[in-house]
Amino acid sequence: MTGTLYGLGLGPGDPELVTLKAARILKAVPVIAWPAPDTGPSFARAIAASHLPGGQMEIPIVVPMRAERFPAREVYDAAAGEIAAHLDAGRDVAVLCEGDPFFYGSFMYLFERLAGKYPTEIVPGVSSIMAAAAAAARPLAARNDVLTVLPGPLPDGDLQARIEAAGAVAIIKIGKHFSRLRALIEKLNLLPQAMYVERATLTEGRCLPLADVAGNDAPYFSIILIYKGGEDWAGLAGAARGSRL
Amino acid sequence: MTGTLYGLGLGPGDPELVTLKAARILKAVPVIAWPAPDTGPSFARAIAASHLPGGQMEIPIVVPMRAERFPAREVYDAAAGEIAAHLDAGRDVAVLCEGDPFFYGSFMYLFERLAGKYPTEIVPGVSSIMAAAAAAARPLAARNDVLTVLPGPLPDGDLQARIEAAGAVAIIKIGKHFSRLRALIEKLNLLPQAMYVERATLTEGRCLPLADVAGNDAPYFSIILIYKGGEDWAGLAGAARGSRL
Repeated sequence: MTGTLYGLGLGPGDPELVTLKAARILKAVPVIAWPAPDTGPSFARAIAASHLPGGQMEIPIVVPMRAERFPAREVYDAAAGEIAAHLDAGRDVAVLCEGDPFFYGSFMYLFERLAGKYPTEIVPGVSSIMAAAAAAARPLAARNDVLTVLPGPLPDGDLQARIEAAGAVAIIKIGKHFSRLRALIEKLNLLPQAMYVERATLTEGRCLPLADVAGNDAPYFSIILIYKGGEDWAGLAGAARGSRL
Repeated sequence: MTGTLYGLGLGPGDPELVTLKAARILKAVPVIAWPAPDTGPSFARAIAASHLPGGQMEIPIVVPMRAERFPAREVYDAAAGEIAAHLDAGRDVAVLCEGDPFFYGSFMYLFERLAGKYPTEIVPGVSSIMAAAAAAARPLAARNDVLTVLPGPLPDGDLQARIEAAGAVAIIKIGKHFSRLRALIEKLNLLPQAMYVERATLTEGRCLPLADVAGNDAPYFSIILIYKGGEDWAGLAGAARGSRL
């Protein structure tokens, strides 16, 4: 009997936004694997921390944060090998994933290496774009809006055409692309309708109009939301002023 | 002291995919409000049922299921009035939301009526599109994919242009539009890359290639996912065959 591989969505950051299912699996599995940058702590491991009973075996997957060089084949080959050895020995392994495992998650690199060989279960999680909309106190999309999710590294021409065609936009993977993205949004006259959300649901998180963000840098875990829906969005933005979000 | 209004995301259907935060609030609030169709049970109420301690006051919001006639102003005006009376009396009210409150959720009709006047907190939930991707055992979007979410009621011309421009597509709000949508996807030669997911995460749910769906009808809570990413997606689909998803 081989073990089961779990792709475990842990939500946007607040440990209380973990699902009951993910919390149960975190308490039960003998092995966890989690992504980590080459320096600094693992965000996924931090979200899970308060739910772990202690004593699990742990597999850190140290991924260089130079996003353009993905996938880092050797890193994922080695991690998949280590995980496979546990699965072969009959031990369940949970791979900790920020947000949702299948929403732009690096879990796919392990999934494509292991899912064909081992029982695999994906546990969906609360996505960062939903958390960002909650923090911004405005619906992400409504009625028959077209919602477009755009990775920040895309070239300006691509982004412009897609922003112009969309009803609602979420731009993810911002990081070093921040000032280029802000300049593009300003050029499109959408700055007044753009909200910037950083580390949604965490105590150190912040949420403010994109126009008010100082500096030219943003963390990887930040999101820009653009609302093009017209009068309803403006009305909602006004309504939200009274809320404590 | 007025009460707090919660927009409570309850996830896609499996009661274990409720977040710890939503479960805590469900146990604590004296009043819950939930949407219900004119006939049949409330899906949101059913997801919450096992988390309720019993004894809460309940406000059903009976919304006619003729989606094109939204928003049903009188229904939401009346519900907002009833909720406001509880908030004025200092009682917290949780509005139960399938999936995520701000992802095409009807909660926005209450939010726009009440958030300006009362402390309001949005608790994000696991969205149906993430649950559908987990059920289909394929990533929803990866790397620098553009993900487009399309409401099924949009006209064919709109849908076609947006499907052609997207890297990954999730079509929601299918219902009576099912056969028109399938015909359009077939015309675009994308039928082999389209997956149909109905009531993801529920025991009565099902997930199969769109080409294999019999009949010309689908429930409102069904989703079509289209993968245009090329070789990687095909590889992943192959890999998933061995999984127990």
